[in-house]
Amino acid sequence: METGERIEATLTQAIQRATADQAPPLLAAAMRHAVFPGGARVRPRLTLAVAAACQDSDPELAVAAAAAVELLHCASLVHDDLPCFDDAAIRRGRPSVQALFGVPVALLAGDALIVLAFETLAQAPARLPSRLGVLLTVIAKGVGAPGGIAAGQAWESEPDPPPELYRRCKTGALFVAAVKAGAIAGGADPDRWTELGLRLGEAYQVADDLLDAVATGDDCDKPVGRDIALGRPNTVARLGLDGAVRCLESLVDSAVLSIPPCRGERELKDLVRLQALRLVPKHLAHRAA
Amino acid sequence: METGERIEATLTQAIQRATADQAPPLLAAAMRHAVFPGGARVRPRLTLAVAAACQDSDPELAVAAAAAVELLHCASLVHDDLPCFDDAAIRRGRPSVQALFGVPVALLAGDALIVLAFETLAQAPARLPSRLGVLLTVIAKGVGAPGGIAAGQAWESEPDPPPELYRRCKTGALFVAAVKAGAIAGGADPDRWTELGLRLGEAYQVADDLLDAVATGDDCDKPVGRDIALGRPNTVARLGLDGAVRCLESLVDSAVLSIPPCRGERELKDLVRLQALRLVPKHLAHRAA
Repeated sequence: METGERIEATLTQAIQRATADQAPPLLAAAMRHAVFPGGARVRPRLTLAVAAACQDSDPELAVAAAAAVELLHCASLVHDDLPCFDDAAIRRGRPSVQALFGVPVALLAGDALIVLAFETLAQAPARLPSRLGVLLTVIAKGVGAPGGIAAGQAWESEPDPPPELYRRCKTGALFVAAVKAGAIAGGADPDRWTELGLRLGEAYQVADDLLDAVATGDDCDKPVGRDIALGRPNTVARLGLDGAVRCLESLVDSAVLSIPPCRGERELKDLVRLQALRLVPKHLAHRAA
Repeated sequence: METGERIEATLTQAIQRATADQAPPLLAAAMRHAVFPGGARVRPRLTLAVAAACQDSDPELAVAAAAAVELLHCASLVHDDLPCFDDAAIRRGRPSVQALFGVPVALLAGDALIVLAFETLAQAPARLPSRLGVLLTVIAKGVGAPGGIAAGQAWESEPDPPPELYRRCKTGALFVAAVKAGAIAGGADPDRWTELGLRLGEAYQVADDLLDAVATGDDCDKPVGRDIALGRPNTVARLGLDGAVRCLESLVDSAVLSIPPCRGERELKDLVRLQALRLVPKHLAHRAA
Protein backbone atom coordinates (compact mmCIF):
# COMPACT_ATOMS: atom_id res chain seq x y z
CA MET A 1 0.00 0.00 0.00
CA GLU A 2 1.23 3.50 -0.86
CA THR A 3 2.12 5.83 2.05
CA GLY A 4 -0.91 8.08 1.66
CA GLU A 5 -3.23 5.08 1.53
CA ARG A 6 -1.72 3.58 4.67
CA ILE A 7 -2.30 6.86 6.53
CA GLU A 8 -5.91 7.15 5.32
CA ALA A 9 -6.62 3.50 6.15
CA THR A 10 -5.31 3.89 9.71
CA LEU A 11 -7.21 7.13 10.24
CA THR A 12 -10.37 5.50 8.87
CA GLN A 13 -10.06 2.57 11.26
CA ALA A 14 -9.50 4.91 14.19
CA ILE A 15 -12.51 7.10 13.38
CA GLN A 16 -14.65 4.00 12.81
CA ARG A 17 -13.74 2.73 16.29
CA ALA A 18 -14.63 6.07 17.87
CA THR A 19 -17.92 6.47 16.02
CA ALA A 20 -19.16 2.88 16.23
CA ASP A 21 -22.36 1.55 17.81
CA GLN A 22 -23.86 3.92 20.20
CA ALA A 23 -21.81 7.06 19.59
CA PRO A 24 -23.87 10.27 19.72
CA PRO A 25 -24.56 10.96 16.00
CA LEU A 26 -23.53 14.64 15.97
CA LEU A 27 -20.25 13.95 17.77
CA ALA A 28 -19.51 11.09 15.36
CA ALA A 29 -20.25 13.27 12.32
CA ALA A 30 -18.15 16.12 13.72
CA MET A 31 -15.15 13.84 14.30
CA ARG A 32 -15.42 12.49 10.75
CA HIS A 33 -15.73 16.02 9.34
CA ALA A 34 -12.63 17.11 11.24
CA VAL A 35 -10.46 14.34 9.79
CA PHE A 36 -11.87 13.63 6.29
CA PRO A 37 -11.12 14.70 3.67
CA GLY A 38 -7.76 15.74 5.05
CA GLY A 39 -5.23 18.32 3.98
CA ALA A 40 -1.79 17.36 2.71
CA ARG A 41 -1.16 15.04 5.73
CA VAL A 42 2.30 16.65 5.91
CA ARG A 43 3.08 15.53 9.47
CA PRO A 44 2.11 11.84 9.25
CA ARG A 45 3.95 11.54 5.92
CA LEU A 46 7.00 12.90 7.68
CA THR A 47 6.68 10.32 10.47
CA LEU A 48 6.50 7.48 7.97
CA ALA A 49 9.36 8.85 5.85
CA VAL A 50 11.68 9.10 8.86
CA ALA A 51 10.67 5.64 10.12
CA ALA A 52 11.33 4.14 6.69
CA ALA A 53 14.73 5.84 6.48
CA CYS A 54 15.83 4.28 9.78
CA GLN A 55 17.39 0.90 10.27
CA ASP A 56 14.85 -1.06 12.21
CA SER A 57 11.41 0.20 11.33
CA ASP A 58 8.27 -1.22 12.92
CA PRO A 59 5.74 -0.33 10.18
CA GLU A 60 2.61 -0.98 12.27
CA LEU A 61 3.85 1.18 15.11
CA ALA A 62 5.03 3.86 12.67
CA VAL A 63 1.67 4.20 10.93
CA ALA A 64 -0.16 4.29 14.28
CA ALA A 65 2.19 7.07 15.41
CA ALA A 66 1.62 8.90 12.12
CA ALA A 67 -2.15 8.65 12.56
CA ALA A 68 -1.89 9.82 16.18
CA VAL A 69 0.06 12.89 15.10
CA GLU A 70 -2.53 13.70 12.41
CA LEU A 71 -5.49 13.22 14.79
CA LEU A 72 -3.86 15.63 17.23
CA HIS A 73 -3.28 18.12 14.41
CA CYS A 74 -6.97 17.85 13.40
CA ALA A 75 -8.04 18.29 17.04
CA SER A 76 -5.95 21.44 17.31
CA LEU A 77 -7.58 22.88 14.17
CA VAL A 78 -11.08 22.16 15.54
CA HIS A 79 -10.31 23.95 18.81
CA ASP A 80 -8.42 26.72 16.97
CA ASP A 81 -11.55 27.54 14.96
CA LEU A 82 -13.72 28.03 18.07
CA PRO A 83 -15.09 31.52 18.79
CA CYS A 84 -12.69 32.07 21.71
CA PHE A 85 -9.73 31.73 19.31
CA ASP A 86 -9.94 32.29 15.53
CA ASP A 87 -13.75 32.11 15.28
CA ALA A 88 -13.32 30.60 11.81
CA ALA A 89 -16.33 29.58 9.74
CA ILE A 90 -14.20 28.00 6.97
CA ARG A 91 -11.53 25.32 7.15
CA ARG A 92 -10.02 23.44 4.20
CA GLY A 93 -12.53 25.19 1.93
CA ARG A 94 -15.54 23.79 3.81
CA PRO A 95 -17.53 24.93 6.85
CA SER A 96 -15.47 24.48 10.03
CA VAL A 97 -16.62 21.93 12.61
CA GLN A 98 -17.93 24.66 14.91
CA ALA A 99 -19.82 26.36 12.07
CA LEU A 100 -21.47 23.07 11.09
CA PHE A 101 -22.06 21.41 14.47
CA GLY A 102 -22.00 24.26 17.00
CA VAL A 103 -19.52 25.11 19.73
CA PRO A 104 -20.36 22.37 22.30
CA VAL A 105 -20.04 19.49 19.81
CA ALA A 106 -16.89 21.02 18.24
CA LEU A 107 -15.24 21.33 21.64
CA LEU A 108 -16.09 17.71 22.48
CA ALA A 109 -14.99 16.47 19.05
CA GLY A 110 -11.58 18.07 19.67
CA ASP A 111 -11.37 16.42 23.10
CA ALA A 112 -12.39 13.04 21.71
CA LEU A 113 -9.84 13.33 18.88
CA ILE A 114 -7.05 13.97 21.40
CA VAL A 115 -8.10 10.86 23.32
CA LEU A 116 -8.44 8.84 20.10
CA ALA A 117 -4.89 9.77 19.08
CA PHE A 118 -3.39 8.18 22.19
CA GLU A 119 -5.79 5.23 22.00
CA THR A 120 -4.74 4.58 18.39
CA LEU A 121 -1.12 4.52 19.45
CA ALA A 122 -1.85 2.24 22.40
CA GLN A 123 -3.64 -0.27 20.21
CA ALA A 124 -0.90 -0.59 17.59
CA PRO A 125 0.31 -4.18 17.28
CA ALA A 126 3.88 -3.07 18.02
CA ARG A 127 6.75 -5.48 17.53
CA LEU A 128 8.45 -4.03 20.59
CA PRO A 129 5.88 -2.87 23.20
CA SER A 130 8.69 -1.19 25.12
CA ARG A 131 8.79 1.51 22.43
CA LEU A 132 5.22 2.59 23.19
CA GLY A 133 5.97 4.62 26.32
CA VAL A 134 8.77 6.66 24.70
CA LEU A 135 6.71 7.20 21.56
CA LEU A 136 3.70 8.38 23.51
CA THR A 137 5.80 10.75 25.61
CA VAL A 138 7.37 12.34 22.53
CA ILE A 139 3.99 12.86 20.87
CA ALA A 140 2.41 14.22 24.07
CA LYS A 141 5.20 16.80 24.32
CA GLY A 142 4.22 18.05 20.86
CA VAL A 143 0.71 18.99 21.91
CA GLY A 144 0.54 19.61 25.66
CA ALA A 145 2.32 21.81 28.19
CA PRO A 146 4.90 23.23 28.73
CA GLY A 147 6.05 23.28 25.08
CA GLY A 148 3.40 21.84 22.72
CA ILE A 149 0.50 23.25 20.72
CA ALA A 150 -1.68 24.02 23.78
CA ALA A 151 1.18 26.03 25.27
CA GLY A 152 1.73 27.82 21.95
CA GLN A 153 -1.90 28.78 21.76
CA ALA A 154 -1.86 29.85 25.43
CA TRP A 155 0.94 32.32 24.74
CA GLU A 156 -1.68 34.30 22.79
CA SER A 157 -3.37 35.03 26.13
CA GLU A 158 -0.17 36.42 27.66
CA PRO A 159 0.59 40.15 27.55
CA ASP A 160 4.06 39.76 26.00
CA PRO A 161 4.66 36.39 24.35
CA PRO A 162 8.26 35.61 23.35
CA PRO A 163 7.88 35.36 19.53
CA GLU A 164 10.32 32.49 18.91
CA LEU A 165 9.06 30.35 21.77
CA TYR A 166 5.47 31.05 20.75
CA ARG A 167 6.06 29.79 17.20
CA ARG A 168 8.18 26.86 18.29
CA CYS A 169 5.32 25.67 20.52
CA LYS A 170 2.48 26.44 18.16
CA THR A 171 3.94 25.04 14.93
CA GLY A 172 7.36 23.53 15.54
CA ALA A 173 6.53 21.19 18.42
CA LEU A 174 4.25 18.89 16.45
CA PHE A 175 6.79 18.71 13.61
CA VAL A 176 9.45 17.75 16.14
CA ALA A 177 7.06 15.14 17.55
CA ALA A 178 6.27 13.79 14.07
CA VAL A 179 9.96 13.40 13.19
CA LYS A 180 11.00 11.94 16.56
CA ALA A 181 8.05 9.53 16.52
CA GLY A 182 9.26 8.24 13.15
CA ALA A 183 12.77 7.80 14.54
CA ILE A 184 11.50 5.86 17.58
CA ALA A 185 9.31 3.60 15.44
CA GLY A 186 12.42 3.11 13.30
CA GLY A 187 14.55 2.07 16.26
CA ALA A 188 16.78 5.18 16.09
CA ASP A 189 17.81 7.70 18.76
CA PRO A 190 15.05 10.37 18.55
CA ASP A 191 17.22 13.19 19.91
CA ARG A 192 19.44 13.17 16.82
CA TRP A 193 16.32 14.02 14.77
CA THR A 194 15.10 17.05 16.76
CA GLU A 195 16.88 19.53 14.51
CA LEU A 196 15.08 18.23 11.39
CA GLY A 197 11.71 18.69 13.10
CA LEU A 198 12.57 22.21 14.28
CA ARG A 199 13.79 23.37 10.86
CA LEU A 200 10.80 21.86 9.05
CA GLY A 201 8.45 23.45 11.58
CA GLU A 202 10.02 26.84 10.90
CA ALA A 203 9.92 26.28 7.14
CA TYR A 204 6.26 25.37 7.38
CA GLN A 205 5.59 28.49 9.41
CA VAL A 206 7.29 30.73 6.82
CA ALA A 207 5.35 28.97 4.06
CA ASP A 208 2.18 29.63 6.04
CA ASP A 209 3.13 33.30 6.36
CA LEU A 210 3.65 33.46 2.58
CA LEU A 211 0.24 31.87 2.03
CA ASP A 212 -1.40 34.25 4.47
CA ALA A 213 0.15 37.25 2.72
CA VAL A 214 -0.24 36.39 -0.96
CA ALA A 215 -2.29 33.27 -1.53
CA THR A 216 -5.17 33.13 -3.95
CA GLY A 217 -8.11 30.77 -3.58
CA ASP A 218 -6.13 28.12 -5.53
CA ASP A 219 -3.41 27.82 -2.92
CA CYS A 220 -5.23 28.21 0.27
CA ASP A 221 -8.08 26.61 2.16
CA LYS A 222 -8.48 29.17 4.92
CA PRO A 223 -9.11 32.92 5.21
CA VAL A 224 -6.07 34.93 4.05
CA GLY A 225 -4.63 38.12 5.51
CA ARG A 226 -5.53 37.08 9.07
CA ASP A 227 -2.02 37.58 10.49
CA ILE A 228 -1.73 41.12 9.19
CA ALA A 229 -5.29 41.90 10.33
CA LEU A 230 -4.63 40.51 13.82
CA GLY A 231 -1.13 42.03 14.09
CA ARG A 232 0.51 38.61 14.49
CA PRO A 233 4.19 38.20 13.68
CA ASN A 234 4.57 37.36 9.97
CA THR A 235 7.79 36.71 8.05
CA VAL A 236 6.57 38.49 4.91
CA ALA A 237 5.81 41.64 6.87
CA ARG A 238 9.31 41.43 8.35
CA LEU A 239 11.43 40.38 5.32
CA GLY A 240 9.32 41.18 2.27
CA LEU A 241 8.22 38.62 -0.30
CA ASP A 242 11.63 37.73 -1.76
CA GLY A 243 13.19 37.71 1.68
CA ALA A 244 10.57 35.28 2.94
CA VAL A 245 11.07 32.96 -0.05
CA ARG A 246 14.86 33.02 0.54
CA CYS A 247 14.31 32.35 4.24
CA LEU A 248 12.17 29.32 3.36
CA GLU A 249 14.88 27.99 1.01
CA SER A 250 17.56 28.38 3.62
CA LEU A 251 15.43 26.59 6.26
CA VAL A 252 14.87 23.69 3.88
CA ASP A 253 18.62 23.53 3.24
CA SER A 254 19.40 23.32 6.95
CA ALA A 255 16.64 20.76 7.41
CA VAL A 256 18.20 18.55 4.74
CA LEU A 257 21.68 19.04 6.20
CA SER A 258 20.47 18.07 9.67
CA ILE A 259 19.34 14.57 8.63
CA PRO A 260 21.58 12.16 10.56
CA PRO A 261 23.27 9.22 8.81
CA CYS A 262 20.70 6.48 8.22
CA ARG A 263 19.89 3.70 5.80
CA GLY A 264 17.55 5.75 3.60
CA GLU A 265 19.37 9.08 3.95
CA ARG A 266 19.42 9.99 0.26
CA GLU A 267 15.74 9.16 -0.38
CA LEU A 268 14.71 11.13 2.71
CA LYS A 269 16.71 14.19 1.61
CA ASP A 270 15.08 14.10 -1.85
CA LEU A 271 11.65 13.73 -0.26
CA VAL A 272 12.14 16.67 2.12
CA ARG A 273 13.20 18.93 -0.78
CA LEU A 274 10.28 17.78 -2.92
CA GLN A 275 7.69 18.26 -0.18
CA ALA A 276 9.17 21.65 0.72
CA LEU A 277 8.71 22.90 -2.84
CA ARG A 278 5.02 22.09 -2.54
CA LEU A 279 4.77 24.47 0.41
CA VAL A 280 5.46 27.51 -1.77
CA PRO A 281 2.38 29.26 -3.21
CA LYS A 282 2.10 28.36 -6.92
CA HIS A 283 2.73 31.81 -8.40
CA LEU A 284 5.84 32.27 -6.23
CA ALA A 285 7.29 28.87 -7.11
CA HIS A 286 9.58 30.33 -9.84
CA ARG A 287 11.26 32.52 -7.21
CA ALA A 288 12.11 29.43 -5.17
CA ALA A 289 13.19 27.32 -8.15
CA MET B 1 3.18 6.63 52.13
CA GLU B 2 -0.60 6.66 52.70
CA THR B 3 -2.87 6.25 49.63
CA GLY B 4 -4.01 9.87 49.53
CA GLU B 5 -0.44 11.10 49.82
CA ARG B 6 0.72 8.85 46.98
CA ILE B 7 -2.01 10.26 44.74
CA GLU B 8 -1.18 13.88 45.62
CA ALA B 9 2.55 13.27 45.14
CA THR B 10 2.04 11.77 41.68
CA LEU B 11 -0.34 14.56 40.64
CA THR B 12 2.14 17.13 41.94
CA GLN B 13 4.98 15.64 39.91
CA ALA B 14 2.81 15.55 36.78
CA ILE B 15 1.70 19.17 37.13
CA GLN B 16 5.27 20.23 37.86
CA ARG B 17 6.44 18.60 34.62
CA ALA B 18 3.72 20.34 32.63
CA THR B 19 4.29 23.77 34.16
CA ALA B 20 8.08 23.75 34.24
CA ASP B 21 10.54 26.15 32.58
CA GLN B 22 8.98 28.07 29.82
CA ALA B 23 5.31 27.22 30.25
CA PRO B 24 2.97 30.18 29.61
CA PRO B 25 2.27 31.47 33.15
CA LEU B 26 -1.53 31.68 32.86
CA LEU B 27 -1.83 28.18 31.42
CA ALA B 28 0.41 26.83 34.18
CA ALA B 29 -1.62 28.56 36.89
CA ALA B 30 -4.89 27.35 35.35
CA MET B 31 -3.70 23.74 35.27
CA ARG B 32 -2.63 23.95 38.91
CA HIS B 33 -5.93 25.53 39.90
CA ALA B 34 -7.84 22.75 38.13
CA VAL B 35 -6.07 19.98 40.04
CA PHE B 36 -5.23 21.47 43.48
CA PRO B 37 -6.68 21.40 46.03
CA GLY B 38 -8.66 18.44 44.79
CA GLY B 39 -12.02 17.01 45.77
CA ALA B 40 -12.35 13.59 47.41
CA ARG B 41 -10.17 11.94 44.72
CA VAL B 42 -12.80 9.17 44.63
CA ARG B 43 -11.73 7.67 41.29
CA PRO B 44 -7.95 7.41 41.84
CA ARG B 45 -8.54 5.96 45.32
CA LEU B 46 -10.69 3.33 43.66
CA THR B 47 -7.95 2.49 41.15
CA LEU B 48 -5.42 2.03 43.93
CA ALA B 49 -7.83 0.02 46.11
CA VAL B 50 -8.58 -2.42 43.28
CA ALA B 51 -4.91 -2.72 42.32
CA ALA B 52 -3.99 -3.45 45.94
CA ALA B 53 -6.73 -6.07 46.24
CA CYS B 54 -5.37 -7.98 43.23
CA GLN B 55 -2.67 -10.59 43.24
CA ASP B 56 0.17 -9.06 41.33
CA SER B 57 0.08 -5.31 41.81
CA ASP B 58 2.57 -2.99 40.14
CA PRO B 59 2.36 -0.02 42.54
CA GLU B 60 4.17 2.47 40.30
CA LEU B 61 1.94 1.70 37.35
CA ALA B 62 -1.15 1.72 39.58
CA VAL B 63 -0.49 5.18 40.99
CA ALA B 64 0.31 6.55 37.50
CA ALA B 65 -3.00 5.13 36.27
CA ALA B 66 -4.79 6.62 39.28
CA ALA B 67 -3.27 10.04 38.59
CA ALA B 68 -4.17 9.77 34.89
CA VAL B 69 -7.80 9.04 35.78
CA GLU B 70 -7.90 12.03 38.15
CA LEU B 71 -6.27 14.39 35.62
CA LEU B 72 -8.89 13.37 33.05
CA HIS B 73 -11.64 13.95 35.62
CA CYS B 74 -10.25 17.43 36.37
CA ALA B 75 -10.01 18.17 32.62
CA SER B 76 -13.65 17.20 32.17
CA LEU B 77 -14.71 19.54 34.99
CA VAL B 78 -12.77 22.44 33.45
CA HIS B 79 -14.45 21.95 30.07
CA ASP B 80 -17.82 21.27 31.73
CA ASP B 81 -17.71 24.69 33.39
CA LEU B 82 -17.21 26.54 30.09
CA PRO B 83 -19.98 28.88 28.89
CA CYS B 84 -21.06 26.49 26.11
CA PHE B 85 -21.92 23.87 28.76
CA ASP B 86 -22.66 24.65 32.43
CA ASP B 87 -21.24 28.19 32.40
CA ALA B 88 -20.24 27.68 36.03
CA ALA B 89 -18.47 30.42 37.95
CA ILE B 90 -17.90 28.22 41.03
CA ARG B 91 -16.25 24.82 41.35
CA ARG B 92 -15.21 23.12 44.60
CA GLY B 93 -16.21 26.29 46.47
CA ARG B 94 -13.75 28.47 44.53
CA PRO B 95 -13.90 30.36 41.24
CA SER B 96 -13.93 27.95 38.30
CA VAL B 97 -10.95 27.91 35.94
CA GLN B 98 -12.89 29.76 33.26
CA ALA B 99 -14.09 32.40 35.74
CA LEU B 100 -10.54 33.00 36.94
CA PHE B 101 -8.50 32.64 33.74
CA GLY B 102 -11.00 33.23 30.92
CA VAL B 103 -12.40 30.87 28.30
CA PRO B 104 -9.36 30.49 26.00
CA VAL B 105 -6.96 29.54 28.80
CA ALA B 106 -9.55 27.25 30.42
CA LEU B 107 -10.12 25.42 27.16
CA LEU B 108 -6.37 24.96 26.66
CA ALA B 109 -5.85 23.91 30.28
CA GLY B 110 -8.42 21.15 29.75
CA ASP B 111 -6.68 20.04 26.56
CA ALA B 112 -3.27 20.06 28.22
CA LEU B 113 -4.61 18.07 31.21
CA ILE B 114 -5.94 15.37 28.86
CA VAL B 115 -2.52 15.14 27.22
CA LEU B 116 -0.77 15.17 30.59
CA ALA B 117 -2.90 12.24 31.78
CA PHE B 118 -1.65 9.99 29.00
CA GLU B 119 1.90 11.30 29.32
CA THR B 120 1.88 10.51 33.05
CA LEU B 121 0.82 6.97 32.30
CA ALA B 122 3.44 6.59 29.56
CA GLN B 123 6.22 7.70 31.87
CA ALA B 124 5.40 5.32 34.71
CA PRO B 125 8.35 3.07 35.51
CA ALA B 126 6.18 -0.02 34.93
CA ARG B 127 7.46 -3.46 35.92
CA LEU B 128 5.76 -4.93 32.85
CA PRO B 129 5.73 -2.42 29.95
CA SER B 130 3.36 -4.73 28.07
CA ARG B 131 0.56 -3.64 30.45
CA LEU B 132 0.81 -0.01 29.30
CA GLY B 133 -1.11 -0.42 26.02
CA VAL B 134 -4.07 -2.20 27.62
CA LEU B 135 -4.14 0.24 30.51
CA LEU B 136 -4.10 3.24 28.23
CA THR B 137 -6.86 1.80 26.04
CA VAL B 138 -9.12 1.17 29.04
CA ILE B 139 -8.60 4.69 30.36
CA ALA B 140 -9.11 6.26 26.92
CA LYS B 141 -12.44 4.45 26.61
CA GLY B 142 -13.58 6.16 29.82
CA VAL B 143 -13.18 9.65 28.40
CA GLY B 144 -13.44 9.58 24.60
CA ALA B 145 -15.90 8.35 21.99
CA PRO B 146 -18.05 6.31 21.49
CA GLY B 147 -18.75 5.66 25.20
CA GLY B 148 -16.72 7.94 27.47
CA ILE B 149 -17.23 11.35 29.08
CA ALA B 150 -16.99 13.32 25.80
CA ALA B 151 -19.71 11.10 24.33
CA GLY B 152 -21.84 11.53 27.46
CA GLN B 153 -21.55 15.29 27.26
CA ALA B 154 -22.28 15.19 23.51
CA TRP B 155 -25.60 13.42 24.16
CA GLU B 156 -26.73 16.74 25.68
CA SER B 157 -26.59 18.19 22.13
CA GLU B 158 -28.86 15.46 20.71
CA PRO B 159 -32.65 15.96 20.46
CA ASP B 160 -33.54 12.75 22.31
CA PRO B 161 -30.68 11.30 24.37
CA PRO B 162 -31.22 7.74 25.72
CA PRO B 163 -31.15 8.45 29.51
CA GLU B 164 -29.31 5.30 30.61
CA LEU B 165 -26.65 5.47 27.93
CA TYR B 166 -26.20 9.18 28.59
CA ARG B 167 -25.50 8.60 32.28
CA ARG B 168 -23.35 5.54 31.69
CA CYS B 169 -21.12 7.61 29.40
CA LYS B 170 -21.09 10.79 31.42
CA THR B 171 -20.51 9.33 34.89
CA GLY B 172 -20.18 5.56 34.71
CA ALA B 173 -17.48 5.28 32.05
CA LEU B 174 -14.72 6.89 34.10
CA PHE B 175 -15.62 4.76 37.14
CA VAL B 176 -15.39 1.67 34.95
CA ALA B 177 -12.04 2.91 33.63
CA ALA B 178 -10.78 3.61 37.16
CA VAL B 179 -11.71 0.12 38.37
CA LYS B 180 -10.42 -1.71 35.29
CA ALA B 181 -7.17 0.28 35.35
CA GLY B 182 -6.63 -0.89 38.92
CA ALA B 183 -7.27 -4.48 37.87
CA ILE B 184 -4.79 -4.26 34.98
CA ALA B 185 -2.10 -2.68 37.18
CA GLY B 186 -2.85 -5.53 39.60
CA GLY B 187 -2.34 -8.19 36.93
CA ALA B 188 -6.02 -9.26 36.94
CA ASP B 189 -8.53 -9.73 34.10
CA PRO B 190 -10.13 -6.25 33.80
CA ASP B 191 -13.40 -7.51 32.31
CA ARG B 192 -14.35 -9.26 35.56
CA TRP B 193 -14.28 -5.82 37.24
CA THR B 194 -16.55 -3.93 34.83
CA GLU B 195 -19.65 -4.56 36.94
CA LEU B 196 -18.10 -2.93 40.02
CA GLY B 197 -17.28 0.18 38.00
CA LEU B 198 -20.78 0.37 36.53
CA ARG B 199 -22.54 0.00 39.90
CA LEU B 200 -20.26 2.52 41.62
CA GLY B 201 -20.80 4.94 38.76
CA GLU B 202 -24.55 4.64 39.18
CA ALA B 203 -24.28 4.97 42.94
CA TYR B 204 -22.21 8.08 42.54
CA GLN B 205 -24.76 9.51 40.12
CA VAL B 206 -27.63 8.90 42.58
CA ALA B 207 -25.55 10.46 45.36
CA ASP B 208 -24.97 13.45 43.09
CA ASP B 209 -28.71 13.69 42.43
CA LEU B 210 -29.32 13.67 46.21
CA LEU B 211 -26.76 16.41 46.67
CA ASP B 212 -28.25 18.45 43.86
CA ALA B 213 -31.70 18.15 45.39
CA VAL B 214 -31.06 18.62 49.11
CA ALA B 215 -27.50 19.62 49.87
CA THR B 216 -26.62 22.52 52.06
CA GLY B 217 -23.42 24.53 51.74
CA ASP B 218 -21.72 22.03 54.08
CA ASP B 219 -22.09 19.08 51.74
CA CYS B 220 -21.64 20.60 48.38
CA ASP B 221 -19.06 22.56 46.46
CA LYS B 222 -21.12 23.43 43.40
CA PRO B 223 -24.42 25.20 42.67
CA VAL B 224 -27.40 23.10 43.83
CA GLY B 225 -30.76 22.61 42.15
CA ARG B 226 -29.20 22.75 38.65
CA ASP B 227 -30.71 19.45 37.45
CA ILE B 228 -34.23 20.45 38.38
CA ALA B 229 -33.70 23.91 36.87
CA LEU B 230 -32.33 22.46 33.62
CA GLY B 231 -34.90 19.66 33.43
CA ARG B 232 -32.18 16.97 33.56
CA PRO B 233 -33.08 13.45 34.72
CA ASN B 234 -32.72 13.24 38.52
CA THR B 235 -33.34 10.21 40.75
CA VAL B 236 -34.84 12.28 43.57
CA ALA B 237 -37.41 13.78 41.21
CA ARG B 238 -38.25 10.26 40.05
CA LEU B 239 -38.21 8.26 43.32
CA GLY B 240 -38.50 10.82 46.09
CA LEU B 241 -35.94 11.33 48.84
CA ASP B 242 -36.34 8.00 50.66
CA GLY B 243 -36.56 6.14 47.35
CA ALA B 244 -33.30 7.70 46.17
CA VAL B 245 -31.52 6.80 49.44
CA ARG B 246 -32.77 3.19 49.13
CA CYS B 247 -31.67 3.11 45.49
CA LEU B 248 -28.20 4.24 46.54
CA GLU B 249 -28.03 1.52 49.22
CA SER B 250 -29.05 -1.15 46.79
CA LEU B 251 -26.48 -0.03 44.21
CA VAL B 252 -23.75 -0.16 46.85
CA ASP B 253 -24.91 -3.69 47.78
CA SER B 254 -24.66 -4.88 44.19
CA ALA B 255 -21.29 -3.15 43.81
CA VAL B 256 -19.96 -5.04 46.83
CA LEU B 257 -21.45 -8.33 45.60
CA SER B 258 -19.86 -7.88 42.16
CA ILE B 259 -16.30 -7.83 43.50
CA PRO B 260 -14.61 -10.93 42.03
CA PRO B 261 -12.55 -13.28 44.22
CA CYS B 262 -9.17 -11.67 44.90
CA ARG B 263 -6.48 -11.55 47.56
CA GLY B 264 -7.80 -8.43 49.29
CA GLU B 265 -11.51 -9.12 48.74
CA ARG B 266 -12.67 -8.47 52.30
CA GLU B 267 -10.73 -5.20 52.72
CA LEU B 268 -12.00 -3.94 49.38
CA LYS B 269 -15.62 -4.70 50.28
CA ASP B 270 -15.26 -2.82 53.58
CA LEU B 271 -13.66 0.10 51.80
CA VAL B 272 -16.39 0.33 49.16
CA ARG B 273 -19.09 0.38 51.87
CA LEU B 274 -17.22 2.99 53.88
CA GLN B 275 -16.59 5.28 50.92
CA ALA B 276 -20.20 4.88 49.77
CA LEU B 277 -21.50 6.10 53.12
CA ARG B 278 -19.49 9.28 52.65
CA LEU B 279 -21.42 9.97 49.44
CA VAL B 280 -24.68 10.52 51.33
CA PRO B 281 -25.43 14.13 52.32
CA LYS B 282 -24.80 14.50 56.07
CA HIS B 283 -28.36 15.18 57.20
CA LEU B 284 -29.64 12.15 55.24
CA ALA B 285 -26.99 9.79 56.59
CA HIS B 286 -29.32 8.42 59.32
CA ARG B 287 -31.73 7.24 56.62
CA ALA B 288 -28.97 5.21 54.98
CA ALA B 289 -27.57 3.86 58.25
